[in-house]
Formats: sequence, C-alpha cells, structure tokens
Amino acid sequence: MNVDIGNALASVASPGVSRESLERLDDQVADAHERIETGMANAEHGYEALNLPQRTDPDEIRRAVEPVADADALLTVGIGGSALGAATITEALADESDTEAIYLDNVDPEWITAHLERLPLENTAINVVSRSGTTAETLANFLVVRDAFESAGVDWTERTIVTTGESGPLRDLSERHDLPSLKVPDGVPGRFSALSAVGMVAAAVCGHDLEAFLSGAAAEAETLTGSLFDCPAYAYGATTYALDQRGAGVNAMVPYAESLETYAEWFAQLWAESLGKDDLGQTPVRALGVTDQHSQLQLYRAGPRDKLVTFVSPGSFDDRPIPETDVEALSYLGDSTLGELLEAEFEATEASLAAAGRPNVRIELDGVDEYELGGLLYGMEAATVLAGELYGVNTFEQPAVEWAKKATRGLLGGGDFEEAEAVAEKTELRIER
Amino acid sequence: MNVDIGNALASVASPGVSRESLERLDDQVADAHERIETGMANAEHGYEALNLPQRTDPDEIRRAVEPVADADALLTVGIGGSALGAATITEALADESDTEAIYLDNVDPEWITAHLERLPLENTAINVVSRSGTTAETLANFLVVRDAFESAGVDWTERTIVTTGESGPLRDLSERHDLPSLKVPDGVPGRFSALSAVGMVAAAVCGHDLEAFLSGAAAEAETLTGSLFDCPAYAYGATTYALDQRGAGVNAMVPYAESLETYAEWFAQLWAESLGKDDLGQTPVRALGVTDQHSQLQLYRAGPRDKLVTFVSPGSFDDRPIPETDVEALSYLGDSTLGELLEAEFEATEASLAAAGRPNVRIELDGVDEYELGGLLYGMEAATVLAGELYGVNTFEQPAVEWAKKATRGLLGGGDFEEAEAVAEKTELRIER
Repeated sequence: MNVDIGNALASVASPGVSRESLERLDDQVADAHERIETGMANAEHGYEALNLPQRTDPDEIRRAVEPVADADALLTVGIGGSALGAATITEALADESDTEAIYLDNVDPEWITAHLERLPLENTAINVVSRSGTTAETLANFLVVRDAFESAGVDWTERTIVTTGESGPLRDLSERHDLPSLKVPDGVPGRFSALSAVGMVAAAVCGHDLEAFLSGAAAEAETLTGSLFDCPAYAYGATTYALDQRGAGVNAMVPYAESLETYAEWFAQLWAESLGKDDLGQTPVRALGVTDQHSQLQLYRAGPRDKLVTFVSPGSFDDRPIPETDVEALSYLGDSTLGELLEAEFEATEASLAAAGRPNVRIELDGVDEYELGGLLYGMEAATVLAGELYGVNTFEQPAVEWAKKATRGLLGGGDFEEAEAVAEKTELRIER
Repeated sequence: MNVDIGNALASVASPGVSRESLERLDDQVADAHERIETGMANAEHGYEALNLPQRTDPDEIRRAVEPVADADALLTVGIGGSALGAATITEALADESDTEAIYLDNVDPEWITAHLERLPLENTAINVVSRSGTTAETLANFLVVRDAFESAGVDWTERTIVTTGESGPLRDLSERHDLPSLKVPDGVPGRFSALSAVGMVAAAVCGHDLEAFLSGAAAEAETLTGSLFDCPAYAYGATTYALDQRGAGVNAMVPYAESLETYAEWFAQLWAESLGKDDLGQTPVRALGVTDQHSQLQLYRAGPRDKLVTFVSPGSFDDRPIPETDVEALSYLGDSTLGELLEAEFEATEASLAAAGRPNVRIELDGVDEYELGGLLYGMEAATVLAGELYGVNTFEQPAVEWAKKATRGLLGGGDFEEAEAVAEKTELRIER
C-alpha cells in the first residue's frame, strides 16, 4: 500500500500536524521501531504477529482443507478476530470464488435458523475457530450447527475443520473425531491473526492464492524501517496518533469499493481493541464510498473538528460504461463509466474535506487481489502496533471485555460471579409509550 | 418503543446527566415541542415528515406496485435517504418475504455487474427513487440497469416503478413510458421519508403490512407531548443532547438483532446529516450485538469518556435451544437457548458499561415486526427533530454535501465548477512501498 498524508498537514487542515512536528515525532517512531524489531526477533506476545508472513505454511492449510475443497458453502463459526480476518479476505475476493463463505459471528437465533434452513448442508463445510475452545458464542453455535447436520443426516465429522489452541475442548474434540485441525499460533492475538490459519482457512476453501497473500504481506514487512517518511504503515500509524493528540478522536475508515466493506469492520476491531484503553484510543467508524457521501459527509465536513477520514482507494477494477441518454440534464454521465464516476466522487469528496480544513489520509491499493490485501492487512497491523507504542498502551490485551463475559456466564448458571449480581441492580428511568 | 435512560444518569455514569438537569432541560423540551407542533400544523419543510403516518396512503402504494407484485427480486436504485429507509424495513422483515430486496446504493462497477449477472432479470422489478431525478449515482445506475434489461430481452418498462418529485427527468421518463409512479412528498427530506412511498414501495413489493407499519408510527406520534418524562422519543433526543453537551460526542447504536443492522445505518444517516453542522453534532457509530462485544466493547468500556452507547433490545424472537454437550467446560450452555445467551450477553454488556461508569441508553421493542418498526423509525425521527431544536441547528438541510457534488460534475465534464479545479491542487505527502 501507499499512503498520502498531505491532507493531514497543518497547512491544509485543523486539526492538522505540521511537517516539523512529524519530523520530531519521527524520533519516537525510530525508538518504537526498535522496540518492535526486538519484539519480533524474540517472538514476544503480539509482536509475533508481524512475523506471520514468514511463519505461516500455506501447504499445511491447504492439506487441512483438502477434504472439503469441493464445498459449495463454508460456514465459519467464530467471532471477533476468529471471523473478521477471514471474512475480510473472502468478501474482498468473493467474485472470484464459487464457494459461498458465511460467518456465524452472532448468536441471534432467527438468523442462525435462517442460514441453516437455506444452506445445502450436504455440500457445506464447517470451519470452527476459537483459540481457547471455550468462547461461549462460538461453542453454542457449533453445538447448534453440529446438531443441524445430524438432523439432516449429514456426517459433520467428515465436513469440519478445527482451528484452535494447543489444548481445550475444541482440541479434544478434534482429536476424538480425528478432524483436520490447525493451530492458532502462539503469541498472536485474534485481531492480529488474519495472516495465520485463523484468517486463511476460509480463503483456502474458497480457492484463493495463499502464497500471493503472504508475499504481499512480506513485501509490506520489508518497508518497516525507523522512519515514518520511508514506511507507509508507520506513516499511517504516526499521523493518526498525531491527529488524535490534536483532537481527532474519531477515525472514519472509508473504502471506495463494496468489496472492502468488511475490511473496514476488521480495521475497526484492530484499532478499537488494540488502542482503546487507559481512557485513550481513537474511535473507529466504518463507512463506505460513495454510499456514505449521502449519509455521513455532511457531518464529516461541517460537524465537530474531531475527525480524521481515512480513504482507501482500490486502484484498478473492471469498469462498466454508463449508457448514453437523451436526457440533457444527465448527458454528461453518458460519456463516462461507473468507474470514472466512482473515481471522480472519491477525489471530489477528499478535496471537499480538504477545502473545509478537515484532515484526511489516502491509502492507495493497486487493485483488490490477494497480494494487495496481504499488504493492506499487514500494513494496518504494523500501523496499529506503532500507534500502540506511541500511546504507550498494552496493544495486545483486551482486559475490559472480561467483566461482561463473567456476568454472562453467571447469568446462565455457569458459576457464581459477582458481576452477574450487578446486572440485577440496574438503575432504571423508563419512559414508556 | 420504550426508552430506559437510567444508565445515563450522573449517579451511574460520567459523563452523565443528573435528574435535576433533566428537569431543567424539560423546559427547553416543552418550548421545542411547541415549535415542532407549529411546524407540523403548518406542514413546514421537515416538520411535515412527522405528519406522514396520517398523510401516507397505503392503497396508492399497493396499486402502484401491483404490476410487479409477483417479482422474485426487487432492485431498488437509490442512495442515502432514497434507499436506507426502505432497506431498514425489508431487511428487518426479510425472513417473512419470498422477494429478495437488493439496494443499488453505490456505483462500484464490479459490484453492480455481479448483481446484474446473478439476478433473474425476467422476474426482477426495478424501484428507482430520486426526488430531483438528477442524482448522479442513481441515474447512472438506472441507465446501466435499464440497458442490462434490454440486453437480456426483458422489457424494463413493464417492470419499473418510479418514485420522484413533481417534475424532473425521472418524472418525464415515467410519463413518457407510462410507468407506475409515486411522489416523494413535499416538505420531507430524504432521510425522514421512510414512512412515505420512498420507504414503503419496497415493503409493499415484499408483501409487508403497510397499515401496521403506519399505525405503529401513529401510536408513537401520540406520545409527542411537552415533557421528556412522558415521551420516549423526546427522552432519547434530550438525553443524547445533554450527554453530548457533557462530552459524549460519539453515539454508538447497537441493536441486539441481525435484522436491525440496517436500522443502525439508517439511524447513522438521520443523526449525522440532521445534526452534523455548525461544528456541532454527535458522531453516530453503527455496531451490532453480540458480535461487536468482540470488537468494540474494549474501547467503549476503557477508552476515552466521549461515548454514549445506545442499545436496541428486540424483545421477543423465535428461539432455538443449544444442544446438550458432554464437555464439562461448556455444560452450562446446554441448559439454555441461543436467545437466552443473546439476552444474557446484552444485559451483561449493558451492566459492564454501567459498572465502568460509561453512559448507555436502552431502547426496547416488543418484537421486530411492522408495527414496532413503524414506532421505532418514527420515534427516532422525532428524537432527531427535538435534538435539532435543542442544538439550534437547521435539522432539515445538508449544505455541506454540495461542494463535492459540484466538483464531481465538473470532473466528469458536466460544466465549469471552481470546485473541480481545487481537486487538482491537492497537497501531497506520499509514502510509497
């Protein structure tokens, strides 16, 4: 990926960061890079994620999925980092696969039932993903899915791939039924696992080029140097950090391609869970160009000066001409293509924010394919790790989600937890219809 | 809808609003309500939207869609307010319709082509929606869709419904080809038009109960009184305003139902475009329970104290038991249902924010059906109008989007616009791979 931070400069935008401030910040980037390099060299928790382009074995993943390589549909049962990386890849490349990839990342009963009733289970594969093997939503859904396969007379043990940690209930289950299984790599938090089996099993079943994905990531890894002026990922991480320090507490991620809509969700988890702690962290907002020009642009251009807008330009795509029309008011459209309209709207929207002094950054891809996706995901992970160093937070933990997990478990009778008791003490002020 | 603002009180959360402050604010609510009543009585621009439950004629809509009532798929060609209201209804109720509703609300050429290649055009209807009849994205897409129908040998004039203003290119076209057409009501901005033909044509083609939708809205309209303590919609609008004044610049809308995911997008447009002006306005964030507990909860609970979280509890749904398991670590799940797990996670998440002193509000529905949806959409529109009065902004305009529209037009050769020239003068600071 390439990054253009021109519209984030103080000469353009407020909040904005001056070239001089960026140069001073670059000393901190150099120090942070040293910390990151050490973490990678020692395979430390979290930093190890940045080693994945070298560590992940695509052959092992392809061997594991071989029994279900002919599936018409793939049900991935996972949530958060166990779903979003995989979904980002398969949804970006959905046009190039005959396998429908579905992600059961919620426990909504009507929605689960609708999927199970609609799918041809005899041609459907299951990809269950949980490092601990105890994630409540994932295991509940897996029990439901397994049961639906049994009820339909389909042997789920012939159609299930497991990705989990070294031990735990899912590991036991995969051994008991002799299921093909892969390991969630040590030292890699879920939201940083797109470049491991966690993210790549679904891509493998859908027939995507795993080597190209990893080599795009490896090329991005090559750019990690001690200066934000030489490294797109660090340029992004440092600029967003500097803007947040100057008041841009919101970061709207706006890809100009439908195929990258899930990427924006993946980024939102990566950014929020990694940096949202100690009362710090930018709030990621997922949006989509051009659609959200007709929804969010008014706010981005004229609302509070608390936002950075990050555009992702997909580069090339298969275009489609707009047919000629005899309606005079629209005749200007008939000389162009949908892609030219999309591109013009992107440039116009970017310029409209700059003209209003609103900071924005452009991430440029050279098409949406495996290689570019690998680079994008790796680049944004490295940007997140760098930002975490600059904030001084523990990028790789997410302690604030534990409270609700305990309360849930207590409410369902899975043990005594004081958190569950607090639920009953809710302060109410109800206004009823 | 019912609203519970207990967890937004200063006794629970920071930022929070004290009961005394709410009572003082209620005087402003009374004044704002008077302004709103006057606007409604005089059918003033914008306020007229709150009259739609009485103004909209469901029979007229059903008559217009009658020629395509048997369609297997409905392609709605519209963007922003011309798509999101309709999409909110049909996606919330998708389980109950045999008609697939698709929304062409982007000009991504690969995505458009994929839809047109996949759909059985001979059984597909077209619903084109644009008040002006000149919206670039909508008209470009309509020209493309029309052409695809012609290429497939399908007479698009037999399968198209037009919803547009009194005059303009789309009105001319509907008259030239004698197409069934409906009128975008006067005085109703796009984002407030869900309860008009704009939002209801798709629902009619999908066979939903239009009368129930309107009567749910009418019941909500009955609650509009001079006090936030008596009116759920005003309670929501006033509480969010008070929290924004106290530092909660972000409003995360989190429905606990997959079927309400598009509702969160609809709300994001309503809130952002109506209130995002004069450097004011909360930033809406769309999220989804339980999924985003594994993505955003860490930030919401431990990040900056700049957020309100709005939960939407769907009430009842068709449940599904979780099968028993012999895995001890998971046995607590086997006694319950997916719905109980969803409900426990919702209550646990809400309580976990309260325990961390983070403000949140609960909107309660009694199931997701036409009646409840009508009430929800009307209620949130009324909340938005009230908030607009409290902020003192012009709720019904969106002037900041014009700059980019002109620039786009100029870039495509549709006239001379200085905005288009500004695009070429972009400040660059590119960091390349």
